[in-house]
Amino acid sequence: MLEQLKQKVYEANMLLPKYGLITFTWGNVSGIDREKGLFVIKPSGVEYEKLRPEDMVVVDLEGKVVEGDLNPSSDTDTHLVLYRHFKNIGGITHTHSRWATAWAQTGRGLPAYGTTHADYLYGEVPCTRALTMEEIRGEYEWNTGKVIVETFEELDPDLMNAVLVRSHGPFVWAENATKSVEKAVVLDEVAMMAFVGEAATACAMKAIPQELLDKHYLRKHGKHAYYGQKQE
Amino acid sequence: MLEQLKQKVYEANMLLPKYGLITFTWGNVSGIDREKGLFVIKPSGVEYEKLRPEDMVVVDLEGKVVEGDLNPSSDTDTHLVLYRHFKNIGGITHTHSRWATAWAQTGRGLPAYGTTHADYLYGEVPCTRALTMEEIRGEYEWNTGKVIVETFEELDPDLMNAVLVRSHGPFVWAENATKSVEKAVVLDEVAMMAFVGEAATACAMKAIPQELLDKHYLRKHGKHAYYGQKQE
Amino acid sequence: MLEQLKQKVYEANMLLPKYGLITFTWGNVSGIDREKGLFVIKPSGVEYEKLRPEDMVVVDLEGKVVEGDLNPSSDTDTHLVLYRHFKNIGGITHTHSRWATAWAQTGRGLPAYGTTHADYLYGEVPCTRALTMEEIRGEYEWNTGKVIVETFEELDPDLMNAVLVRSHGPFVWAENATKSVEKAVVLDEVAMMAFVGEAATACAMKAIPQELLDKHYLRKHGKHAYYGQKQE
Amino acid sequence: MLEQLKQKVYEANMLLPKYGLITFTWGNVSGIDREKGLFVIKPSGVEYEKLRPEDMVVVDLEGKVVEGDLNPSSDTDTHLVLYRHFKNIGGITHTHSRWATAWAQTGRGLPAYGTTHADYLYGEVPCTRALTMEEIRGEYEWNTGKVIVETFEELDPDLMNAVLVRSHGPFVWAENATKSVEKAVVLDEVAMMAFVGEAATACAMKAIPQELLDKHYLRKHGKHAYYGQKQE
Repeated sequence: MLEQLKQKVYEANMLLPKYGLITFTWGNVSGIDREKGLFVIKPSGVEYEKLRPEDMVVVDLEGKVVEGDLNPSSDTDTHLVLYRHFKNIGGITHTHSRWATAWAQTGRGLPAYGTTHADYLYGEVPCTRALTMEEIRGEYEWNTGKVIVETFEELDPDLMNAVLVRSHGPFVWAENATKSVEKAVVLDEVAMMAFVGEAATACAMKAIPQELLDKHYLRKHGKHAYYGQKQE
Repeated sequence: MLEQLKQKVYEANMLLPKYGLITFTWGNVSGIDREKGLFVIKPSGVEYEKLRPEDMVVVDLEGKVVEGDLNPSSDTDTHLVLYRHFKNIGGITHTHSRWATAWAQTGRGLPAYGTTHADYLYGEVPCTRALTMEEIRGEYEWNTGKVIVETFEELDPDLMNAVLVRSHGPFVWAENATKSVEKAVVLDEVAMMAFVGEAATACAMKAIPQELLDKHYLRKHGKHAYYGQKQE
Repeated sequence: MLEQLKQKVYEANMLLPKYGLITFTWGNVSGIDREKGLFVIKPSGVEYEKLRPEDMVVVDLEGKVVEGDLNPSSDTDTHLVLYRHFKNIGGITHTHSRWATAWAQTGRGLPAYGTTHADYLYGEVPCTRALTMEEIRGEYEWNTGKVIVETFEELDPDLMNAVLVRSHGPFVWAENATKSVEKAVVLDEVAMMAFVGEAATACAMKAIPQELLDKHYLRKHGKHAYYGQKQE
Repeated sequence: MLEQLKQKVYEANMLLPKYGLITFTWGNVSGIDREKGLFVIKPSGVEYEKLRPEDMVVVDLEGKVVEGDLNPSSDTDTHLVLYRHFKNIGGITHTHSRWATAWAQTGRGLPAYGTTHADYLYGEVPCTRALTMEEIRGEYEWNTGKVIVETFEELDPDLMNAVLVRSHGPFVWAENATKSVEKAVVLDEVAMMAFVGEAATACAMKAIPQELLDKHYLRKHGKHAYYGQKQE
């Protein structure tokens, strides 16, 4: 069942270690077949080195496993809620990638500080509100999905394809599984840049004296250079 | 003697370079056989590239080497104190991994800032008090263990499996040696995220203008996109 | 046409992944043949793993593609403006390398904080002003080039070979394509160092007590050392 | 001449790329034969990938090249001054490693913040004063050595084996070339940790709520855990 989609979702999952987004098994990618109303997701807690395409689990839009011997990702309910509410999306990536997760832990949205961000993410990546005690005690993963949907009440999920779940980490979506991993890579990269930029804005030092600048530049450049070997 | 445990402790030690937790020989993993009252630990100062399972040293709960040609880790006494006081633990990892050690150097506990932390560590990872001059001059490694135990007077070592020794670095334990290394990986990761999150909270910049955002996003997306090759 | 230059520009482009300056296809290197008035540039949106020397695109100084089946880099117009105004330069590198880009996002120039900087870059690397709404809506890449040129009104592009385009990222040039990549590596490195230095200047902690210092140093050094194996 | 020493100095130089201390050719290691009064040093500006043991240059304590076809490192005079004044040292490493160099650019000494530091470096690593305009214009590399020696007027170079040259970078020495590289690795590592620790001390956030902590920890641990596969 859905052999091609399983293969693609498997390959998308394997991009997570390739791009350094993952520690141990902390992440999962899914992809959906909208016509059949079924999505394919990584099994829970299986090491990436041992993962095979046939391990992917097929789930319907009621959340029932319709194929697969292994438990689906413990975050399956969150994926499910997103597929039900964001009608056009085709794939979802969840990771605990270090920079994006660090940002999610601050409770702030991630501002669009540059064109690297703007190339992939249309504006500030929102951060959800904290879940209430009841939401945490209840259907936690389902409620995580609902809080994401609530965060998008005034946002278009086809224009903004990512969210930071407060104190948790990023969920990113796109037209298919592979593209959602790509955006997750970008999100981590721009979170790193945002961190550095903000910190660099808060501080300043004095530049080196002109003389030292001259000395170093000119020992490598121009007619009085003496660094390196004589060219023949 | 204890061939299987030696093999496992050897393998757990070899995970330290694999996960990038180690510089030179700065770290050691041990595992205990509770029935026999013996633990196995890395020899002192041996390079990881040259380490072999048969180099592991067997020590009893009085601290005596009962098998092994090499000196045990110089931190053996700290492991010993922990095994004697924390009755359920099966393995201990000590490293100078960069983020966790940097945190230990601040003298602060590591707060639980997110679910990555909560997945493995139940609450703030405590930081010990500084050792006194007498404790440093005396049985230093033994006293390091005692200060850890003192830090856990009101804490349950089966729920909180890690500590930051002030100005020194992390000790992490678990049901066996391998699991203790895994938690040491997590501890370093969440220390990194905590650092970034705290710094990001202290600063802020202005986002880029809407127009620039539009330009970049729309040159890659939608019907007016012109980035990349024409699809055929 | 220009086979040798294409080969060199291809190789210079391949240095971007080698030195870790690139994520996906976010960057491009070009080189010019001043006698023929033609430059060679990476095609737009082609993955580095699939790039071949024959994919390089040849463009004249009016911006017309004179050879090549693929679209040239979407930043071609910026390269074009630089080649037209900076008469002595032979190669240009544009990347979104993380530290330099983070700095560009702050809108500040990158001060010369040390001799590593001075070895390659003669003074503060300037940051352009923000583009106006009209410049963004109009010929965006062309205007990016013009803003760079404007930034150099009082600067000599033969002495300062790099610029940070505000909210975007670095453009770096040199006598040929390869050298421009080298300077892009340096720019990223010194941006990292500037960030760390500024932040370290803003903070301070108390050093560890003398006693702890003694203990650790002396358990590894001197006649009372006991770390490691006995030497034979 | 000095074939064995050349081989060792060559190998010590090759440790610089292995440990990630080097970009391009920014660094050099030397070692001395005290009986013969000759030292061996890396040639200037030669790429590490192309370096061979026979490329090492032999220099006497007057600074004259006594063997070797290539120019010695442009920093040779600094090494020379150190060998002349620090009578017991056997090897010297100079790098522009990123964390130590960033620290040198701040003009501050590097405080001993933990035992990782104390294991190798006995106290605060001093930072030199800035060179005067005359010192920079004159025999720059020789004067760099003299300023280091001046910094050690009240310090014992056999106890403190490293210095940060202000706005430049670290020089590190030891009983031989290999050991000096090891200390240079440590210096970069503890500079990183000092940076993180200082910044982490300056900031703080609020921990996550107890309920979220419980949820995450308990979905992976204890009798109600449901993460991962059922154990058989």
